Amino acid sequence: MLFSNPQFEDLKEQVRRFLQHEIYPLEKDLLSKPFAQMEPVLMQKRDKVRQMGLLAPHMPPKYGGTGLSLVELAQIGELLGTTPYGHFVFNCHAPDAGNMELLAHHASDELKEKYLLPLVKGEIRSCFSMTEPEYAGSNPLQMATKAVVDNDHYIINGHKWFTTAAQGAQFAVVMAVTNAQAQAYNRAAMIIVPTDTEGFELVRNLPVMGETGSGYASHAEIKYHNCRVPVTNRIGADGSGFMLAQERLGPGRIHHCMRWIGICERSFDLMCRYAATRQIDQGVMLGHKQTIQNWIAESRAEINAARLMVLHTAFNMQQHGAKVVRNEIAAIKFYVANVLQQVLDRALQTHGALGLTDDMVLAYWYRHERAARIYDGPDEVHKSSLARSILKQYGLDIKA
Amino acid sequence: MLFSNPQFEDLKEQVRRFLQHEIYPLEKDLLSKPFAQMEPVLMQKRDKVRQMGLLAPHMPPKYGGTGLSLVELAQIGELLGTTPYGHFVFNCHAPDAGNMELLAHHASDELKEKYLLPLVKGEIRSCFSMTEPEYAGSNPLQMATKAVVDNDHYIINGHKWFTTAAQGAQFAVVMAVTNAQAQAYNRAAMIIVPTDTEGFELVRNLPVMGETGSGYASHAEIKYHNCRVPVTNRIGADGSGFMLAQERLGPGRIHHCMRWIGICERSFDLMCRYAATRQIDQGVMLGHKQTIQNWIAESRAEINAARLMVLHTAFNMQQHGAKVVRNEIAAIKFYVANVLQQVLDRALQTHGALGLTDDMVLAYWYRHERAARIYDGPDEVHKSSLARSILKQYGLDIKA
Amino acid sequence: MLFSNPQFEDLKEQVRRFLQHEIYPLEKDLLSKPFAQMEPVLMQKRDKVRQMGLLAPHMPPKYGGTGLSLVELAQIGELLGTTPYGHFVFNCHAPDAGNMELLAHHASDELKEKYLLPLVKGEIRSCFSMTEPEYAGSNPLQMATKAVVDNDHYIINGHKWFTTAAQGAQFAVVMAVTNAQAQAYNRAAMIIVPTDTEGFELVRNLPVMGETGSGYASHAEIKYHNCRVPVTNRIGADGSGFMLAQERLGPGRIHHCMRWIGICERSFDLMCRYAATRQIDQGVMLGHKQTIQNWIAESRAEINAARLMVLHTAFNMQQHGAKVVRNEIAAIKFYVANVLQQVLDRALQTHGALGLTDDMVLAYWYRHERAARIYDGPDEVHKSSLARSILKQYGLDIKA
Amino acid sequence: MLFSNPQFEDLKEQVRRFLQHEIYPLEKDLLSKPFAQMEPVLMQKRDKVRQMGLLAPHMPPKYGGTGLSLVELAQIGELLGTTPYGHFVFNCHAPDAGNMELLAHHASDELKEKYLLPLVKGEIRSCFSMTEPEYAGSNPLQMATKAVVDNDHYIINGHKWFTTAAQGAQFAVVMAVTNAQAQAYNRAAMIIVPTDTEGFELVRNLPVMGETGSGYASHAEIKYHNCRVPVTNRIGADGSGFMLAQERLGPGRIHHCMRWIGICERSFDLMCRYAATRQIDQGVMLGHKQTIQNWIAESRAEINAARLMVLHTAFNMQQHGAKVVRNEIAAIKFYVANVLQQVLDRALQTHGALGLTDDMVLAYWYRHERAARIYDGPDEVHKSSLARSILKQYGLDIKA
Repeated sequence: MLFSNPQFEDLKEQVRRFLQHEIYPLEKDLLSKPFAQMEPVLMQKRDKVRQMGLLAPHMPPKYGGTGLSLVELAQIGELLGTTPYGHFVFNCHAPDAGNMELLAHHASDELKEKYLLPLVKGEIRSCFSMTEPEYAGSNPLQMATKAVVDNDHYIINGHKWFTTAAQGAQFAVVMAVTNAQAQAYNRAAMIIVPTDTEGFELVRNLPVMGETGSGYASHAEIKYHNCRVPVTNRIGADGSGFMLAQERLGPGRIHHCMRWIGICERSFDLMCRYAATRQIDQGVMLGHKQTIQNWIAESRAEINAARLMVLHTAFNMQQHGAKVVRNEIAAIKFYVANVLQQVLDRALQTHGALGLTDDMVLAYWYRHERAARIYDGPDEVHKSSLARSILKQYGLDIKA
Repeated sequence: MLFSNPQFEDLKEQVRRFLQHEIYPLEKDLLSKPFAQMEPVLMQKRDKVRQMGLLAPHMPPKYGGTGLSLVELAQIGELLGTTPYGHFVFNCHAPDAGNMELLAHHASDELKEKYLLPLVKGEIRSCFSMTEPEYAGSNPLQMATKAVVDNDHYIINGHKWFTTAAQGAQFAVVMAVTNAQAQAYNRAAMIIVPTDTEGFELVRNLPVMGETGSGYASHAEIKYHNCRVPVTNRIGADGSGFMLAQERLGPGRIHHCMRWIGICERSFDLMCRYAATRQIDQGVMLGHKQTIQNWIAESRAEINAARLMVLHTAFNMQQHGAKVVRNEIAAIKFYVANVLQQVLDRALQTHGALGLTDDMVLAYWYRHERAARIYDGPDEVHKSSLARSILKQYGLDIKA
Repeated sequence: MLFSNPQFEDLKEQVRRFLQHEIYPLEKDLLSKPFAQMEPVLMQKRDKVRQMGLLAPHMPPKYGGTGLSLVELAQIGELLGTTPYGHFVFNCHAPDAGNMELLAHHASDELKEKYLLPLVKGEIRSCFSMTEPEYAGSNPLQMATKAVVDNDHYIINGHKWFTTAAQGAQFAVVMAVTNAQAQAYNRAAMIIVPTDTEGFELVRNLPVMGETGSGYASHAEIKYHNCRVPVTNRIGADGSGFMLAQERLGPGRIHHCMRWIGICERSFDLMCRYAATRQIDQGVMLGHKQTIQNWIAESRAEINAARLMVLHTAFNMQQHGAKVVRNEIAAIKFYVANVLQQVLDRALQTHGALGLTDDMVLAYWYRHERAARIYDGPDEVHKSSLARSILKQYGLDIKA
Repeated sequence: MLFSNPQFEDLKEQVRRFLQHEIYPLEKDLLSKPFAQMEPVLMQKRDKVRQMGLLAPHMPPKYGGTGLSLVELAQIGELLGTTPYGHFVFNCHAPDAGNMELLAHHASDELKEKYLLPLVKGEIRSCFSMTEPEYAGSNPLQMATKAVVDNDHYIINGHKWFTTAAQGAQFAVVMAVTNAQAQAYNRAAMIIVPTDTEGFELVRNLPVMGETGSGYASHAEIKYHNCRVPVTNRIGADGSGFMLAQERLGPGRIHHCMRWIGICERSFDLMCRYAATRQIDQGVMLGHKQTIQNWIAESRAEINAARLMVLHTAFNMQQHGAKVVRNEIAAIKFYVANVLQQVLDRALQTHGALGLTDDMVLAYWYRHERAARIYDGPDEVHKSSLARSILKQYGLDIKA
């Protein structure tokens, strides 16, 4: 029982059952109704999670969380990933989960009091505003948003997009250049901007893969017009923006990967179930077809491989810190994202026309998780970065 | 200038310019607004096509069409495929195009008068009702919809789905079992059922890849409750349903394939354009990256290969008839559908987050053309069927 | 340090150094000279291994081996796999290693004394004679070789091929049908046939991938003409042949997989080394090319995934026995074989024309390890078998 | 009958029959015996080809060839490619075929008389000495071999490898730098060096994929030590070396591609034949397995696509010259090489262990045609070069 023990297996079983009985039955509605309409029932489910003592499992108890280890969290994250709003119900969803970690590690006590505690309790939501339409997200050093100090305030101007869940959020963590003259990696800082700040303009929710969405389920384009916030709203030291972003991304990638593995397992289960029961001819089931068998076998192997890689990375990160696993983090990001795409594709193809409909969850993932190979660094950037690190050991510095 | 000549190149250029100036600029609206709202402007554009003498290019002049040959039609089809409503504007879109061909070849003069002529003129729309949710579409012999003769009428009962464009259509061509005792391939017939027939119930437009759509842009679930239509509404002889479906699919697959190649070319163009102009670092364009270069080169080769295969098949079908190219038809169906998926995937990935938005046409195709590997027979069925035919030449009859 | 500890890491380092200093330098000769010519120097190296106390690491000390656990053995096996004759030098090479395990677990004391002890000491060699040219190896139930009892002897007749290392072996373990009337899986037995038995005909060494080879480095076609051996030469109970073959294959597949991972790591190392040092233009190294970077990154991820899967399987087999990991065994067999092929292909392509020559070890593996996807059950069989086992959990029995 | 006509179909049928009856039966010997031993029988077969009037089909009649057009030649080349020595028997094999074209177009009358005519007659052989071990073949501008003028002679020094068929050749066409100060592409020239010139050292035949080979079937490493040849041995103008190499490669790539398609067709035929006749269980043939069916279908589609692309390129080159098809040439080179590798891999896997033996031709091609993705420019170079040309049309000059 690598990476686990009987007690933790019991906890996983509890989570599994909760999802099956409380959340899976909501899926069809969640896929077809606006977020605002579903929010009340999701909040009721969240209450149950709170009663189970499992809310914000990624946060230490002192802030109100469950305090799971990274390896445990990863395994719970897989389970939550099996349904689109699993993480939300447990209050460990992006981008709030990352913002909580950021605030816990680097914010002042005042900011923690004001923003972190209600976040952990699930009373408010937040967003993270970094990517800009004018610049390639793959190169974070290109950034036009500026925060200029005016006495004890920052005046922020900029244009962001893909600010997930901005609608309804209480505040944004904004990445802005505070010192354009500094060294490339020391130019920016992260600053909290409440969404009711004058000059905060939510231009639109982006139409992404056919859906503009709303509330938590949306990705906003935002303009910051002379937004004025106290300098004390900065998280961490001046110039620490990229460092914090990097720090945020490490465990963040593990969380994404495990969520994807959850999607894979659910898709795999749907595929096998359908293969075993869908008749295509007198006495012939889909599962009798060798092509379907190949897909089942290949998916099983790939998911197993993916999970072991991610848990192994989490284990090493837990033991030795984030720096030691930089290469592993890059590897799992592109490796698991591709397993995800393949498994989803096979599961959908197995279901034929049914798989295209929103009567099932597959088509939702098929279109929304296409983003997995893009956000947090596209595959191509991770591959080059991993190769760069390896080639350095062979004496070649690609960047030089 | 294989498969073409200077005069025909001029015609293609004319179509190309029309699409670029009249239709491409509408795309963003077409992707975001309900069909009903866009229908008037599409109809205005269709008027222009009518004035150009290019309406219904697949139909012979005697019915009001342009009368292009199959090889010419294929090339025009590629151009129309470069934009989501290209075929619609030229009135040669599925399922109406196939229904027109069906009526032209097999309907009585009375039916032609009543249904074919207004279809060709683009005054009415129709739909094609074959697939049933309870049975695998890959095996057309499984079918529960029945048409029972009652004097000189059929009484039709059944449950269909993926009846594309049913909403707003004047009539459906319904595939129904008329003689359950006949040999498997002789059991069914195609019957025209006007959509205002009592008992015709449009249950819902299916939510497909996040969109239920409306009007022409929808896929309906339909129930036929004791629908009563004259026996003279049957198209062709009794028991000819499967034969007609097969006949319909041959050129239909060429049209699909060429439309996909149009999508590929447009996606390729968008990819190259973006690669050449998107800066990712000081003086470094996306196109400087070898991975992007690989995608461009591989896509170019694959699209070229796909087009040659389809035009060659069309050419042979034109010369020697549909039977001779049965194997070729199977091969292009799965081959081109896979090229489509790969090219789209690369084009989308090249655009990063932008590619996920409906500010571009790529995400629309990414989700809607996933169906290409499923409808008209999934890849797996075409591969087995092609292999069966080949192995027969080596003395092995797989079906035996 | 999952699956290891500091002490075992020291042992691995010792093995690593031995291979680098004693065996790698022999490779060019090993690749170009006949086995007989190289055998003496290999035997000298084996003496050194004996002095290090590492001979036959897979065997318990009571038979003269090192007594490593399966998880440890797997890791040593990876190291030995980095060079073509690594396992041979440590006397844990196929097919002798499998024969030793077979004899240790199932042979009579007399047979152990006579055959096992000298095998463990590395004094004699053996072979394993199962596959027949007339029947598909993927279906072991098809078998024509027969052993008929005549008093207290078997009289064996049959035709085998791919009997690896038969030339120079002292005995063959022959799989033969002893009771054709028994249930399919109980028809055969394994019987020791000394190669000097009358009627044992080594027809030829098969030309495999351009090489007929000789001695240990060969694959023989063999005919058994009325070979007469005592019934006591049978290993295990009558009818136990398939069961023993199955038992042999379990750990055997782990050994193969780890050897392949060793090949992958060595190929990866060669690829990176060449990428870092091969200039393709003024100041431009191969490693500056993004395509090469992609190959390095993808290979790194795939090898990591492969190793974790195999070690995890070995760990589970060690903890819970072979039956529990049947599915895992099937998964690693095809998964790792495909990683192997991809990594080898990339490493070879990176080296360009040099990679095709036998001045390097890559071309040797490229041609000889193509067999990895075929022997011990082709990929296709393992996939179907894994899928069958999974679908059974969903209520579908494919075989029924 | 695109690209053909009934008369030419008859010629193809004649060639097909000749190969089947005269050459295929020799294959097993050709794969296992040294070239010198097989040369006499190959020469007898060549006599028959001469009598059929088909010797040197690529050369114009004025030099003694058949004078086929490029499109015809391509189709004959496919047929010859179905067996390893097909081109040799018809005297249109590499590197002699390319050398003949080179001499025909650019050599002086004297050189033609001395070298071209006996080549066309098949009386002598030649080789082409360009690649150097110290430099990446992918960048032809890197070259150390030098030819220094000394009165009316060149003195040549250099180190080459992969000089195919040098053993037994009467002369080499050597690429050497004659003017190191000239612009990069004008530095070299092609010079004829008879192999009996003093200082011509055939260092060794390279061991390639396990075979050093001999005679025509070998690839030599060669050193040129102060080789002295008349300046009149230069082919074409001084500085024209790269231009001539480029010119040589255009049709050369078409010939390679068609030969590969021949290999594909033969492999496909072997695969289907085996699938239809190899029993894997009572009444179950390999061809009943859907995986095998997939391979057959995919291979059929890919080979068709590959052939159309190459013939279309040949057709365009014939009509409009080599420059117009530069992009097409790059595309077919990598596209067809990859189809070849896939089809070969599937055919081999279908045959199981038998496919690994030299009892069949598949393993020979598997190891020797791995070079297809490397010589004449590796895939990666062709892809970048094609992408560069395309991106230029979009305003981005990658090289700038």
